[in-house]
Amino acid sequence: MGLPLPTITRCSYLFDILRQLSVNGQEYVSSAELGNMLGQKPATIRKDIHFLSGDSVAVHKYDVKALRNMIQEKLGLGIERRACIVGLGKLGSAFLEHAMAFPNESYRIIAGFDSNVNRLETIRTSIELFPAHQIVEKIREKAIELAIIAVPPLQAQDVIDKCCNGGVSGILNFSPAPIRTIPSHVVLKSFDISSELNIFAARAQHSE
Amino acid sequence: MGLPLPTITRCSYLFDILRQLSVNGQEYVSSAELGNMLGQKPATIRKDIHFLSGDSVAVHKYDVKALRNMIQEKLGLGIERRACIVGLGKLGSAFLEHAMAFPNESYRIIAGFDSNVNRLETIRTSIELFPAHQIVEKIREKAIELAIIAVPPLQAQDVIDKCCNGGVSGILNFSPAPIRTIPSHVVLKSFDISSELNIFAARAQHSE
Repeated sequence: MGLPLPTITRCSYLFDILRQLSVNGQEYVSSAELGNMLGQKPATIRKDIHFLSGDSVAVHKYDVKALRNMIQEKLGLGIERRACIVGLGKLGSAFLEHAMAFPNESYRIIAGFDSNVNRLETIRTSIELFPAHQIVEKIREKAIELAIIAVPPLQAQDVIDKCCNGGVSGILNFSPAPIRTIPSHVVLKSFDISSELNIFAARAQHSE
Repeated sequence: MGLPLPTITRCSYLFDILRQLSVNGQEYVSSAELGNMLGQKPATIRKDIHFLSGDSVAVHKYDVKALRNMIQEKLGLGIERRACIVGLGKLGSAFLEHAMAFPNESYRIIAGFDSNVNRLETIRTSIELFPAHQIVEKIREKAIELAIIAVPPLQAQDVIDKCCNGGVSGILNFSPAPIRTIPSHVVLKSFDISSELNIFAARAQHSE
């Protein structure tokens, strides 16, 4: 089934928002509320849900749990896959801690890598840590499917090559480096804070 | 001028990539290379550049510096605005350090806030730090336009309300909390690692 990427993206965010609403005890939610929380128009939310569910009538008010289950089923979430973090400096360690505090149903982080062996010895965590020269071997051995990259820019391409050689199908890259080569079956998403700030500046400029 | 958000987003990322290419001494770049680095089709990149520049002929090879200057001018980048970080736990401190190491031409981070005064005393940084109860007053006084939010989920809405009261026009939210109310003139972008992982899972599922 070919779902458009913007729909996948919005519904993936909805999935987490719905969990939080459910935890807070909220039973029903409107497309207006969901739109507001996602920074999207309510009509966009209704269209996404309508498209995903295949229901014949679009509604404005949803049962929180039922909607979450529908999204989980249609997007194929809730099958736990394995992830690793490469680069355990300040940013990588912070992501690791954040991921342990807010666990995800789609990926479990099971390994961390860093080229600095002394650093590995000082990090306290329940996941397994390995020196960077074992990336290919450990990703293969543990069937890790996703790598979160938080290494310095000059190391990024090399580390990503190794993760791809190990067999990951996804790379979430936080390293501010242009990645030149990636196998065509691997999904790469880069998130660069500097570029995100530029987006705000451009948007501020164009609404002034 | 109304630029579509996807074009603004891709060109903001291009702007940073072009700086890195320029620093590496590369003079020319093709749309194929740029597309590869951004995870986009070369034709999409050519269309964006063509649209932004208004040139009558789309080309396949660009002068790195000239292209960067064009994007800067058309998006209105390079006017330095002021930003702050709210929440200086592991994630916020890591972002702060990252932002200082990779400075941005659109925003300069000039202040940090945290509700834990003891924490403020232990952080070493060249920017000014303030207790969270001064958010409204300091944002107003220093004309801060953007707030980067890295507080625990339960504090997020309250802190974002305060930043909006202080007068920011943009919120980059890393706190995994559904934000319910935001003034209509404020641009909110939430980045949630868990939701991003769901996107990978859904994409892996739909290409299997």
